[in-house]
Amino acid sequence: MAQINTRYVNLVNHETGKTYDIHTPQTYCTEHNEPLVAQYNLQKPLNKGILQNRPFNMWRYKELLPLWDDQYIVSLCEGFSPILEMKNLEKKYAFGQLLMKDEAGNPTGSFKARGLGMAVSKAYELGIRSFSIPTAGNAGSALSAYCAKGNLEAHIYMPKATPKMFQLDCKIMGATVNVIDGNISDCGKAMRADNGDAKWWDVTTLKEPFRLEGKKTMGYEIAEQLNWKLPDVIIYPTGGGTGLIGIWKAFQEMKELGWIKEIPTRMVAVQTVGCNPIVQAFNANLTSATPYEDPGVTIANGLRVPHAFGHKLILKTIYDSNGMAIDVTETEIINALNEFATNEGHFLSPEGAAVWHAAKSLRSSGWIKDNEHVVLLNTGSGYKYAENLWD
Amino acid sequence: MAQINTRYVNLVNHETGKTYDIHTPQTYCTEHNEPLVAQYNLQKPLNKGILQNRPFNMWRYKELLPLWDDQYIVSLCEGFSPILEMKNLEKKYAFGQLLMKDEAGNPTGSFKARGLGMAVSKAYELGIRSFSIPTAGNAGSALSAYCAKGNLEAHIYMPKATPKMFQLDCKIMGATVNVIDGNISDCGKAMRADNGDAKWWDVTTLKEPFRLEGKKTMGYEIAEQLNWKLPDVIIYPTGGGTGLIGIWKAFQEMKELGWIKEIPTRMVAVQTVGCNPIVQAFNANLTSATPYEDPGVTIANGLRVPHAFGHKLILKTIYDSNGMAIDVTETEIINALNEFATNEGHFLSPEGAAVWHAAKSLRSSGWIKDNEHVVLLNTGSGYKYAENLWD
Repeated sequence: MAQINTRYVNLVNHETGKTYDIHTPQTYCTEHNEPLVAQYNLQKPLNKGILQNRPFNMWRYKELLPLWDDQYIVSLCEGFSPILEMKNLEKKYAFGQLLMKDEAGNPTGSFKARGLGMAVSKAYELGIRSFSIPTAGNAGSALSAYCAKGNLEAHIYMPKATPKMFQLDCKIMGATVNVIDGNISDCGKAMRADNGDAKWWDVTTLKEPFRLEGKKTMGYEIAEQLNWKLPDVIIYPTGGGTGLIGIWKAFQEMKELGWIKEIPTRMVAVQTVGCNPIVQAFNANLTSATPYEDPGVTIANGLRVPHAFGHKLILKTIYDSNGMAIDVTETEIINALNEFATNEGHFLSPEGAAVWHAAKSLRSSGWIKDNEHVVLLNTGSGYKYAENLWD
Repeated sequence: MAQINTRYVNLVNHETGKTYDIHTPQTYCTEHNEPLVAQYNLQKPLNKGILQNRPFNMWRYKELLPLWDDQYIVSLCEGFSPILEMKNLEKKYAFGQLLMKDEAGNPTGSFKARGLGMAVSKAYELGIRSFSIPTAGNAGSALSAYCAKGNLEAHIYMPKATPKMFQLDCKIMGATVNVIDGNISDCGKAMRADNGDAKWWDVTTLKEPFRLEGKKTMGYEIAEQLNWKLPDVIIYPTGGGTGLIGIWKAFQEMKELGWIKEIPTRMVAVQTVGCNPIVQAFNANLTSATPYEDPGVTIANGLRVPHAFGHKLILKTIYDSNGMAIDVTETEIINALNEFATNEGHFLSPEGAAVWHAAKSLRSSGWIKDNEHVVLLNTGSGYKYAENLWD
């Protein structure tokens, strides 16, 4: 029997506080060009003991997700990814504790399953049946798969520089794939041109409110899996930034719920030197980022985002957490990927490898201190990027 | 602190009952050319309540695994893969219940992580530090990854017809990769020629006893995840057959432990028409299989095994369970892979797709009856095989 969730109560512009009707589909605050953020009734007591008999996927936190009615869940079993000890590299580089949250085992091989699983389910509940997305690869794979499962329609816009694997993945799921000669922003433009009459629901990062809600489940899991004691540092590869913002949002919600006592965590955003708008803004101590002109091609396709729609939220997360933004080179990514594989037996995504290099830099600079506990986010499987790595 | 497991007590030739010393490394019964099988003290009571606070990987069943001392575990977090409902295809083809145990999210993207994780850990406990394997792909990936994690040496022998992805995977983990112009049996020959002085530990399927023990954890999980009520039918892609044998072994062990009351399950082995030695033996009602001459290349690389060392155990499992062996064509595999993706949003391995076609055949022939519960085994991620699927 369907179960009804009554905690999701509001959608707001995070800057102005302006609220939006939650009973009709909402995109973003077009007045101020800012994302909308879901809010919950967190005053009503919720014991974390509810988690004991829950499924091992992100829907275990369903009271903190925006879906009202369970019957609309479109799920491929996303989330509840493991947090693993990286003992060999912990020792080699003298980390206090080095952990990796490994998103590689998710459906369609990446963390994007969380956000798209949530966005598709909620849109489905609100009556939407066709979707479109500009994507660096994995978000397109995920949207295609959830649309296949839900018997829904998917339209994918992907840069030509994306490994062919991602196109194959979307096509095999029955999606319509458009390959665009340009970067992800160009894909967004092409999609909006084709979708002039808004026949498709646009699930561009943060241009609808619910991918963020799916991504935040990483934060709930980190807390639960570390027995409600948060790490000192979380290092995250930042393209669109939804996960970084989402993890931080989850921490705030859990504190309000009384599930955790304190939030010691510093959030680190990692970008490439060829496309580092957040790093530049952080270095200049700005609260907003400038669109990056002519972003360089990278093997970490997910990091080639010249202007994240959530740039202010990303920077706010970094500042609020006393965090950091840092960039890495292509050579550093490749070397980090190889080092991680030969030492720990995990074939990281290039984005995850960028995170590993950043961790080493911050450790050797002393920004990460001797006894600190560090969580690396590996956002996806390296296999889908193999084309980038062949000689 | 290290925890000591005392339940693993014996290694026997499954046919003759001859026992082997468990305190030194053992390969197989060279006298009768048969695999050795691990035995446990199952009379000593063991309450399945122990599972409540266990990690979500195959080591949750450690009392039923051969490792004595926890400190030798080499783990990448293998096992405890989900069992998922395939509601769209269940309805389309009128299955009583259609479930899929999805091994795609395992480390290195396949079920091979279980067997190699176990074999490497146990060999490590017994003092072994270098390994070799002939492989259709995924077993090589897994051995390479566990050797990387354990700081051990891996030598891989792989057919030329294997997708390049698998070579890359092994190399990135630091293994030595030898590409052989031939099938997996030819790889075995080449490996044994290079390893004349037995400097490497040979982990060929069933030529050491412990990959089987890792693979059997799929059987424990199926029981636990289905609340200790086994399905009517399990359909399994059968190359070397370790998983099929292992699941059945787990069921027998659980019955002896009192964890399950009955074993209604019929075990189905799926092969390709181009290499179907088990199907031929089954159709002729034989208890052993004849080596298949000149096996055809298939996109389901893992099924190109002309002579499984465990052929008698595979056939015994099929007969003991009132099961079945069935073969599928290349076109059927590709069509099944596409149908599964567009209907359920999962990109199966070609071996998993072979299983799905077999399920449909057995349903339409009536061998799978109206109300029966069916579990499909998807043994790995389709992404690693993408090269086989590009036009």
